[in-house]
Amino acid sequence: MIRTDLALEAHEVLLQTSQLPEIEGIKTQRQSMEGIDISVIDVASEAAAQKIGKSPGKYITIEAPELRDKNSQLEERLVGVLCQQLQTLFQLREDSTVLVVGLGNWNVTPDSLGPSVVEDMYVTRHMKTLYPEKIGPGFRNVCAIAPGVLGLTGIETGEIIYGIAQRLNPDLVIAVDALAARSLHRLNTTIQVSNTGIYPGSGVDNRRKGITQETLGMPVIALGVPTVVDAATMTNDVIDLVIQAMRDEADVGNNVTRIFSLLDNFEDADKHKLIQSVLDPEVGMLMVTPKEVDRLLTDISGILADSLNAALHPRVAQEYIN
Amino acid sequence: MIRTDLALEAHEVLLQTSQLPEIEGIKTQRQSMEGIDISVIDVASEAAAQKIGKSPGKYITIEAPELRDKNSQLEERLVGVLCQQLQTLFQLREDSTVLVVGLGNWNVTPDSLGPSVVEDMYVTRHMKTLYPEKIGPGFRNVCAIAPGVLGLTGIETGEIIYGIAQRLNPDLVIAVDALAARSLHRLNTTIQVSNTGIYPGSGVDNRRKGITQETLGMPVIALGVPTVVDAATMTNDVIDLVIQAMRDEADVGNNVTRIFSLLDNFEDADKHKLIQSVLDPEVGMLMVTPKEVDRLLTDISGILADSLNAALHPRVAQEYIN
Amino acid sequence: MIRTDLALEAHEVLLQTSQLPEIEGIKTQRQSMEGIDISVIDVASEAAAQKIGKSPGKYITIEAPELRDKNSQLEERLVGVLCQQLQTLFQLREDSTVLVVGLGNWNVTPDSLGPSVVEDMYVTRHMKTLYPEKIGPGFRNVCAIAPGVLGLTGIETGEIIYGIAQRLNPDLVIAVDALAARSLHRLNTTIQVSNTGIYPGSGVDNRRKGITQETLGMPVIALGVPTVVDAATMTNDVIDLVIQAMRDEADVGNNVTRIFSLLDNFEDADKHKLIQSVLDPEVGMLMVTPKEVDRLLTDISGILADSLNAALHPRVAQEYIN
Amino acid sequence: MIRTDLALEAHEVLLQTSQLPEIEGIKTQRQSMEGIDISVIDVASEAAAQKIGKSPGKYITIEAPELRDKNSQLEERLVGVLCQQLQTLFQLREDSTVLVVGLGNWNVTPDSLGPSVVEDMYVTRHMKTLYPEKIGPGFRNVCAIAPGVLGLTGIETGEIIYGIAQRLNPDLVIAVDALAARSLHRLNTTIQVSNTGIYPGSGVDNRRKGITQETLGMPVIALGVPTVVDAATMTNDVIDLVIQAMRDEADVGNNVTRIFSLLDNFEDADKHKLIQSVLDPEVGMLMVTPKEVDRLLTDISGILADSLNAALHPRVAQEYIN
Repeated sequence: MIRTDLALEAHEVLLQTSQLPEIEGIKTQRQSMEGIDISVIDVASEAAAQKIGKSPGKYITIEAPELRDKNSQLEERLVGVLCQQLQTLFQLREDSTVLVVGLGNWNVTPDSLGPSVVEDMYVTRHMKTLYPEKIGPGFRNVCAIAPGVLGLTGIETGEIIYGIAQRLNPDLVIAVDALAARSLHRLNTTIQVSNTGIYPGSGVDNRRKGITQETLGMPVIALGVPTVVDAATMTNDVIDLVIQAMRDEADVGNNVTRIFSLLDNFEDADKHKLIQSVLDPEVGMLMVTPKEVDRLLTDISGILADSLNAALHPRVAQEYIN
Repeated sequence: MIRTDLALEAHEVLLQTSQLPEIEGIKTQRQSMEGIDISVIDVASEAAAQKIGKSPGKYITIEAPELRDKNSQLEERLVGVLCQQLQTLFQLREDSTVLVVGLGNWNVTPDSLGPSVVEDMYVTRHMKTLYPEKIGPGFRNVCAIAPGVLGLTGIETGEIIYGIAQRLNPDLVIAVDALAARSLHRLNTTIQVSNTGIYPGSGVDNRRKGITQETLGMPVIALGVPTVVDAATMTNDVIDLVIQAMRDEADVGNNVTRIFSLLDNFEDADKHKLIQSVLDPEVGMLMVTPKEVDRLLTDISGILADSLNAALHPRVAQEYIN
Repeated sequence: MIRTDLALEAHEVLLQTSQLPEIEGIKTQRQSMEGIDISVIDVASEAAAQKIGKSPGKYITIEAPELRDKNSQLEERLVGVLCQQLQTLFQLREDSTVLVVGLGNWNVTPDSLGPSVVEDMYVTRHMKTLYPEKIGPGFRNVCAIAPGVLGLTGIETGEIIYGIAQRLNPDLVIAVDALAARSLHRLNTTIQVSNTGIYPGSGVDNRRKGITQETLGMPVIALGVPTVVDAATMTNDVIDLVIQAMRDEADVGNNVTRIFSLLDNFEDADKHKLIQSVLDPEVGMLMVTPKEVDRLLTDISGILADSLNAALHPRVAQEYIN
Repeated sequence: MIRTDLALEAHEVLLQTSQLPEIEGIKTQRQSMEGIDISVIDVASEAAAQKIGKSPGKYITIEAPELRDKNSQLEERLVGVLCQQLQTLFQLREDSTVLVVGLGNWNVTPDSLGPSVVEDMYVTRHMKTLYPEKIGPGFRNVCAIAPGVLGLTGIETGEIIYGIAQRLNPDLVIAVDALAARSLHRLNTTIQVSNTGIYPGSGVDNRRKGITQETLGMPVIALGVPTVVDAATMTNDVIDLVIQAMRDEADVGNNVTRIFSLLDNFEDADKHKLIQSVLDPEVGMLMVTPKEVDRLLTDISGILADSLNAALHPRVAQEYIN
């Protein structure tokens, strides 16, 4: 019901709803360091996956709320942290080939994260064959593509990637995408990495065909940042908060309190359906995004590209250390 | 309180709230033709302007809901209608000079309407001086600029336009901008033209300095299309509709009904404030926009540019007729 | 030696050099109509293909020099002509699937023709499956992709297209690309269509892997417009013309004439090599393009997209007729 | 005759032609440091200015040929050098206001340097007034605009800047622009800074109205990088080099040598006119640019923006030092 691409948020909702201290089959870990919070959620069983609504695997969430105010020292540290976390999810040989896929639509600012990261990737695969003398040791075979979205191509993105992966047979695929979050405060300041691939129905764009190890035949890392909140989800949350606030504020008698409980008991599913029917269905899916989205997106996209370049090319990593 | 740039919507709210059949000092007219509705709202007095929260002047609203589904015949008719309506608002000599200003940020899709229209303007002012032989009769002196937004330039847009208008001394300024609407169904399918200029604080971007006849010294036409809904306004409306829907559906007793009246009586201003405090204030202003915004924007921007070109250049108008 | 992607120009050079009235195995046809010239060159044998340096097949060249001066009536007629010529090269069933490929780099203006045409294609393949009710009869299954260039992706474009074509198995592939011409006056005003696919080493970008019926297993139409002239080729031609002009003008004695003959006899191949060694080799391949390239490209890209949409979708064609 | 925006190249030509060891009224200085060459040319008298075809003032040229091969250490050192050189040309108070102007057309890759630098400027002027708490000490009032080119706006760029400068009254204007060089090897690897403003008729785009201290009333720094070579100039140079090479190689008798002298004596002006008449005049001005122009431009534009940000904001400079 709750539309979020972040396992962290899905887990929060699950704990709240079930009123349990923890969910069976889901292990979590937390770590903090000067403005950067790292959470690891391990969805170990198929049953747990069902409950949380995410596929089994490891989800790493990195939160850095102060990113909102341009802070170049925080950005640099974040590149180091993300690079390290990425490397916990895969193992590469010196001569491994990696395909980076930038999902999303370059014409819609909040959906352009993937293509934007691809533009900044240090692409080397062709140089190794064509100009081996121009490229020293310490660089892996990296290639990258931003295939566009279904509405522009008429082809499911999963089909395009499947076709290319069949041809290139890379050792690893990394799919970068803009995500939808539930909480506004996570927009553009939270990064999620997982080893689960990217599944149907998520993201700003409804992409039905999974880009996963199962469909492609090689490990798939998903890397994303929430850039929008689904309008129906946001409204739902706001209504809950407003009811809460009204109840706290309103100096009202017993009857009122009873009614509010009634409102609360109104099934979440029904409320959500109601909201969606109220939001004009003809307009199609609506997204909520901050006005400053372009600057925030440029910043976070640079951080992702720098981290990926360092995680894939030992020489780039070394330069950062120096 | 209600954030809308459309005089039509502000008028609707005013009528609803005051429960009057009409507002003193505001004249309205309506006209329909095969899928296109034209409303003219004339705010005649300063007192009426205060009430409706818009400056005195004439506001023409053209609605074509079927634009959402690509319809090239409707688009062509709409160009004719808009051209005609534009021409009711100004009178030009054969040798008049017109400055078209594209407000907004080209990096943020829903705010890029102005710059996008400017790119498609048939610009002639320099040709008349430099290559008079390349340009026949039937073309007015048209020049155009997309100055960018405050966050990119550090300069109030009004100051930039003032500086340029002082220098060029055009006979007419036309300012094109993306607007904020209240109703989702008006996004990208409604056009507003007015002879009032553009006032501080409206639009996606908060621009404080008016671009008006008063500040510039020459008539200013404002031309805009709503491309976003302010998130707080939308949530507010949705809550009202949800309450309405719950009341209709819920099989509840008398007490409940009383409470709902209580909810209704909750002052609108307070409710809006509540919502805004609930929406994360650190994220800044939020906008709601359909996922398909890029395609819708390309279409409507082409319609505006074609209409302006025809309204300003008799030769272009003639070509349309042939 | 002479770098041109136009069969028309290669044929001209061949006739000039061999001083023959026609080349065995090459049939030509010409046709003119109010500002539009159509030439058809049929390279029938492998031997003729060797001589002209183009693969066997049919090359249709459409020239409209007056395109340079914005002329909307000429543009409309050109769409009709190109649509008709395209349809002489393929036969489609009602339910055929067509993949349009936009080759080239969207970041380099003269190389952005392919991606720009793809953006304006009327893409329908996904709608037929997902929203069959939204699309009436008279539309074929069209999908489109702009895969980027080797330097951005690290993957040969031919490999990407091969992978996708294997997956989608379309009935026809149409590859759109910016071309290199020899003559400056053909830039942005000449269109070449052929049924030969696109071959290695041509275009602005050196793409080595052919996109042809042979490699893909289905017919491949190539559609292109010259947008650049290779700098070495241009310089070579200019030197010839300058020598010619000097000889005509110079009031010089016999000795001089003899020397000029000597200059003429200087082997073309050697002269070309000389020029290339003189052009700084470190700078890489140089391209010559008019300053106004962006406007010219927008215009011609619109013409190609309109023609393709009409040639592929009977309903679009019909609308043009009405 | 020779079309170059670089004072360094104009000076070279002048020395060559006049066969003098130095030109009266022109002082030069040279300095080298690990892959970076700095030349300072001081045009002290009006007479010298006439001779060299550049206005009186100081021209600093920074050459770093190895920029062509991505070299991040060289880039960092270059930012330091350029920042230092910029600061030799102006003196600012703590509360000075600086207007950065990005000249050129964002739609044409080699002409997009100015707008691209403007996008990366750290703009602060509005924050100082609107959100003084968000900006600490160590930041000057910087604003920036990319006004577009004559063909897009119909307004001379000089007029736009004049209008804005009249309104804002900045203490300093910095105009960034793409330049035309004579030598291909200087493309995208050479930076010129001068205190002379930018003069009519130079650059990729013919801008007639000077942006200078004389027209604006405040100091104007010009900052540019050559991104194109004019096609006529290039051809001219190539012909000279080819003649030279042919003479060296050709085993020819006395007569030939005499003729070649004749060719040499052919007046440069005439030869240039001849070439221009041979290059199709209808195509308009032609530019020569490397195929990789987009990558080279992104790199150099980042270097200019970083240097300007450091030169204008003491806090940014300090961060670089740390």
